Amino acid sequence: MNKPIRVLIVGFGVVGQGFFELFHRVKDELGLSNVSISEIVDLKYGHIKDPRPNIIEDIRAGKAIGEKIMSDDIPRIIEESNADIMGEFTWVSVKTRGEPAFTYLSTAIRSGKHVITTNKGPIAFHYDELMELSRRYNRLVRFKGTVMAGTPSFNILKLLPGAHVEYFMGILNGTTNFILSKMYEEGLSFNEALKLAQQLGYAEADPSLDIDGIDAALKVVILSRVIGWRHAFENVEVEGIRDIDIRKYGDKVVKLIAYADRDKAYVKPTPLDKSDVLAHVSRNLNALRLKLDTLGELLIIGPGAGRFETAQAVLTDLVDIINSARSG
Amino acid sequence: MNKPIRVLIVGFGVVGQGFFELFHRVKDELGLSNVSISEIVDLKYGHIKDPRPNIIEDIRAGKAIGEKIMSDDIPRIIEESNADIMGEFTWVSVKTRGEPAFTYLSTAIRSGKHVITTNKGPIAFHYDELMELSRRYNRLVRFKGTVMAGTPSFNILKLLPGAHVEYFMGILNGTTNFILSKMYEEGLSFNEALKLAQQLGYAEADPSLDIDGIDAALKVVILSRVIGWRHAFENVEVEGIRDIDIRKYGDKVVKLIAYADRDKAYVKPTPLDKSDVLAHVSRNLNALRLKLDTLGELLIIGPGAGRFETAQAVLTDLVDIINSARSG
Repeated sequence: MNKPIRVLIVGFGVVGQGFFELFHRVKDELGLSNVSISEIVDLKYGHIKDPRPNIIEDIRAGKAIGEKIMSDDIPRIIEESNADIMGEFTWVSVKTRGEPAFTYLSTAIRSGKHVITTNKGPIAFHYDELMELSRRYNRLVRFKGTVMAGTPSFNILKLLPGAHVEYFMGILNGTTNFILSKMYEEGLSFNEALKLAQQLGYAEADPSLDIDGIDAALKVVILSRVIGWRHAFENVEVEGIRDIDIRKYGDKVVKLIAYADRDKAYVKPTPLDKSDVLAHVSRNLNALRLKLDTLGELLIIGPGAGRFETAQAVLTDLVDIINSARSG
Repeated sequence: MNKPIRVLIVGFGVVGQGFFELFHRVKDELGLSNVSISEIVDLKYGHIKDPRPNIIEDIRAGKAIGEKIMSDDIPRIIEESNADIMGEFTWVSVKTRGEPAFTYLSTAIRSGKHVITTNKGPIAFHYDELMELSRRYNRLVRFKGTVMAGTPSFNILKLLPGAHVEYFMGILNGTTNFILSKMYEEGLSFNEALKLAQQLGYAEADPSLDIDGIDAALKVVILSRVIGWRHAFENVEVEGIRDIDIRKYGDKVVKLIAYADRDKAYVKPTPLDKSDVLAHVSRNLNALRLKLDTLGELLIIGPGAGRFETAQAVLTDLVDIINSARSG
């Protein structure tokens, strides 16, 4: 029952490091003493075998720590790794439709590894193929962190057997919600609020994925696919908030709303009545409203990004895989 | 793997009937064709063996359907039943500290049955004894429906391994939230709003459990015990909303807030700033904010009562017991 379980981390940025730290903090408490992070692969830090728990300090001290690798080496390293589970935490690429992450994930599954990813690209663009690989190789694919970080989103449906989702609507991008909130609360213009978001590290130097609604649209696709609807990224109607003027919405509060039901899916600035709780979701928080046949409306509000907030998602997936593999 | 699983229902009021209906609606979809409701015991409808799926129609038509029983017969019927799982859905009694429900639950566990209850009394007053019985007889005790009906509340922590609750605060009683909302939205007095709640069936003829904060205090105890804190009902500081005058809270919005951390626990009318999302939770909705070390603040808003809303909780517990018993 407690045979050793090895985890390979691919991509050791904020998410990978956050997970590494959180994992070591709680592994004994969670009865995971048989689980270890056995290997790390990262373009910047190289290929690190049996990383010591204090490796984060070495990284902060700027020490080069692993064997140097090239991008092309990664699939081979994944394939040859003796890990049981791979965590994939590399960057999102929309232009390449989720590559190279999809290659990493499919290579891992084919070589017998369960996989965890926080990367929206491969899940939004390759959902069917990943599910097919999962079945064929009898390996689990988990991706909680792709929607609302560790805040329960689609996985809350595991607590609601027998319930059916009629639609969902939510605030799935924290950066744009931060920008809109600052425009309302402090009277900033769009550009001033965007600059503030960049200064605080909530927005990238190139903020287009966020402000043009692309990030939220990827999440609409992922939620839809989990629920069982077949929306593809290309069919999501997307309008962002670039240069938005909130004054034209009058007494209502405009939010960048992501919506889908079985028939349609969109992301667009939507005026909300002040009696709607969603209108009061501020800062860079995320929110998801699920309309269910048994419960009516259920609303979850929480963080959608962050070092430990996303690490929680990975830990949730890891524990789920270990429990499922044990009982299955 | 698919051996027959029999369920005994004790108490066939709104919750018992709602669960009966929901169960038959989704059992095939959930792969529960081996599960059956084999027996019902209710003071009004008697002792019914192998109830037909359309028994609700007989009840609505006013047909006497079961073998007549007395209250004292129930423990013996539970003990002699060959059911694998008992669902206990009788009335809450604070004066008797959760009896007779606690006797029903302990009798069921001692005679080898897993148990589900939506009854706050036995869980709030007999938590330790039920957990001890659960261990000794290796039977599961589930009680999701005691806090926020089917809306995920304490069970959301199953999705958050490694997270620790620093405090919780919430709106755990729908009746008082309905009354306060109507006072704000329509300028009603406390007594007018209470009367409206009674007309709509949200409040009992004797509304004291709700408006004096007792119902919310029981839920504070249950949440606390699940989290691992040892608050007892007697130590929860309780102030209700009887004859409340909302004008004295000025610009703030007063809500009946239930709060606990490791050191203290209370239920009391609490003025909230309008920037707090909780201030905007209206109607008879419930809400629970959990402060977690990994995620920060997580907020869940949903129904806290109702026929199918509570039936969802029972179904969630039933599926959880079946899955746990299978893998354990």
